[in-house]
Amino acid sequence: MRTTVVAGNPKPGSRTLAAATLLARELSGAAPDHVLDVVTLGAGLLEWGDETVRAAVATVAESELVVFASPTFKATYTGLLKLFLDQFATGEGLRDVTAVPLMLGAGPAHALAPDLLLKPVLVELGAITPAPGLYLLDSTYTSDTRIADYARRWGPVLRATVRQEA
Amino acid sequence: MRTTVVAGNPKPGSRTLAAATLLARELSGAAPDHVLDVVTLGAGLLEWGDETVRAAVATVAESELVVFASPTFKATYTGLLKLFLDQFATGEGLRDVTAVPLMLGAGPAHALAPDLLLKPVLVELGAITPAPGLYLLDSTYTSDTRIADYARRWGPVLRATVRQEA
Amino acid sequence: MRTTVVAGNPKPGSRTLAAATLLARELSGAAPDHVLDVVTLGAGLLEWGDETVRAAVATVAESELVVFASPTFKATYTGLLKLFLDQFATGEGLRDVTAVPLMLGAGPAHALAPDLLLKPVLVELGAITPAPGLYLLDSTYTSDTRIADYARRWGPVLRATVRQEA
Amino acid sequence: MRTTVVAGNPKPGSRTLAAATLLARELSGAAPDHVLDVVTLGAGLLEWGDETVRAAVATVAESELVVFASPTFKATYTGLLKLFLDQFATGEGLRDVTAVPLMLGAGPAHALAPDLLLKPVLVELGAITPAPGLYLLDSTYTSDTRIADYARRWGPVLRATVRQEA
Repeated sequence: MRTTVVAGNPKPGSRTLAAATLLARELSGAAPDHVLDVVTLGAGLLEWGDETVRAAVATVAESELVVFASPTFKATYTGLLKLFLDQFATGEGLRDVTAVPLMLGAGPAHALAPDLLLKPVLVELGAITPAPGLYLLDSTYTSDTRIADYARRWGPVLRATVRQEA
Repeated sequence: MRTTVVAGNPKPGSRTLAAATLLARELSGAAPDHVLDVVTLGAGLLEWGDETVRAAVATVAESELVVFASPTFKATYTGLLKLFLDQFATGEGLRDVTAVPLMLGAGPAHALAPDLLLKPVLVELGAITPAPGLYLLDSTYTSDTRIADYARRWGPVLRATVRQEA
Repeated sequence: MRTTVVAGNPKPGSRTLAAATLLARELSGAAPDHVLDVVTLGAGLLEWGDETVRAAVATVAESELVVFASPTFKATYTGLLKLFLDQFATGEGLRDVTAVPLMLGAGPAHALAPDLLLKPVLVELGAITPAPGLYLLDSTYTSDTRIADYARRWGPVLRATVRQEA
Repeated sequence: MRTTVVAGNPKPGSRTLAAATLLARELSGAAPDHVLDVVTLGAGLLEWGDETVRAAVATVAESELVVFASPTFKATYTGLLKLFLDQFATGEGLRDVTAVPLMLGAGPAHALAPDLLLKPVLVELGAITPAPGLYLLDSTYTSDTRIADYARRWGPVLRATVRQEA
């Protein structure tokens, strides 16, 4: 199963990225094949057709399971993550990709954001999204059992939707 | 595959019900096992523990694929449908049920409602929701090809998430 | 200023009703003119044109400031409240009414629901909604200062939008 | 009344910008004091503390009425606009600013996006948002009467919330 992590935190090497990587590993049983820290794509994100951005889009589109992760900024995902998602084709850009929306926040108030706000963008790109979004507290995700609990309940369903390798 | 249709239109025998039945048939290849016209449950919906309502909830919870359908009232699903959904247990009431959110409207303006508004309620009840919500025009759903197109693209994914019969 | 409270909790005399009444009093400086406990309208809510429901709709529509309150059921407002809101005319039913969305929950996870889910229904009915939705914990709203804080910050703006009495 | 237009279209001098300027003029009776084409801020948007971005934020925060405009990308506002909004302080960045969410789309399907998706971000920044979001077709906004109709119905309410000049 080709697994990719996409993290849209303006700070490189963030806890967002670390949590998404943990989740991908729990879901697939292995380290993710690709880890994309969106901020490293730089100013090419503000254009159309930048080569590095284009390659990153292709990597995501060819994956089977992708965790899309964002910190919570202004009660929703970051502009940075959306800038990257805007580079995908509507309805087709994530076709046949099983996607997991993940958001981290400092407090519990924005726990609805992954399902109400981030997931619909992934759906618009054509992704398969069988499981609920996951919202984690950035201060406790390494000590609580939420990632493992989520993987236990939703891992089988997510894996059932992954396209069969020929 | 045990398939059920739930229609939350205050008018019995509505186009909502008809469209949901068509969709269930396209997705499963057979007539739905159960068709629940929520309005027929009557005033028992306003209580907790009404026997008929309880039986309807059980029928839905034991299904494998359920189309939840509503006309668009005030830019979202009806109070009637929500009244029925309020009878399910949070996080568990639709566990292991693959759910499809379907809404019908007179015009195209509310096409985001199935994914932004109806699907999150089903997710909160624990449903598996791999496919996008479907929004149909109540005047054209019998003449356009939207139901068939949807079933072709999303049927395989929906069926892949249905629990295996032992 | 004619002020009304609408509470959509299936339990009569609920904390939802009490909190909404407190909020209305803080915002207007007086007890609300009308307090509508939606559940008391009974099975007439399931029809169109019930006399008692019709009178309740008229009372709300003729108010200047209305607090619409709901407990959180399945991560959003109740079917009961929506059933009542479905009785108003789209775009016109709350014309010239300044509306405040209020929701109560057992925990903080659904704090986005008033703005993302309840307010849009009020907007669709034509209401004026200048202030953010308010989300309260049902266990602490009498001991914390959230209602007073909200009234201090948003009271002036809400009152500025209330139609001038001739 | 100090009026500002903020347009988050990656294409400079877009129809988004033109429509927002028309709307601001209809609402205030004069040309907007400031017109901010977010894309011109360039790569400074990807950092914190860029001088030009900081000045743009201040201009918006000191305005009394601001039209926030975006084309519809992936069924919601652009990453570019959100990148700019991420630069404001939560709860305070738009304090005392009356804000109007405006979105343009190629078709009618995303008409719920201004109220369900863009307005909540402005609310989170502390803005006053008394009126519904406006959704325009990018092909007809100059020939239909939607901007004028909106200004007629909602202009008085919007102006009533604008802070009094001392």
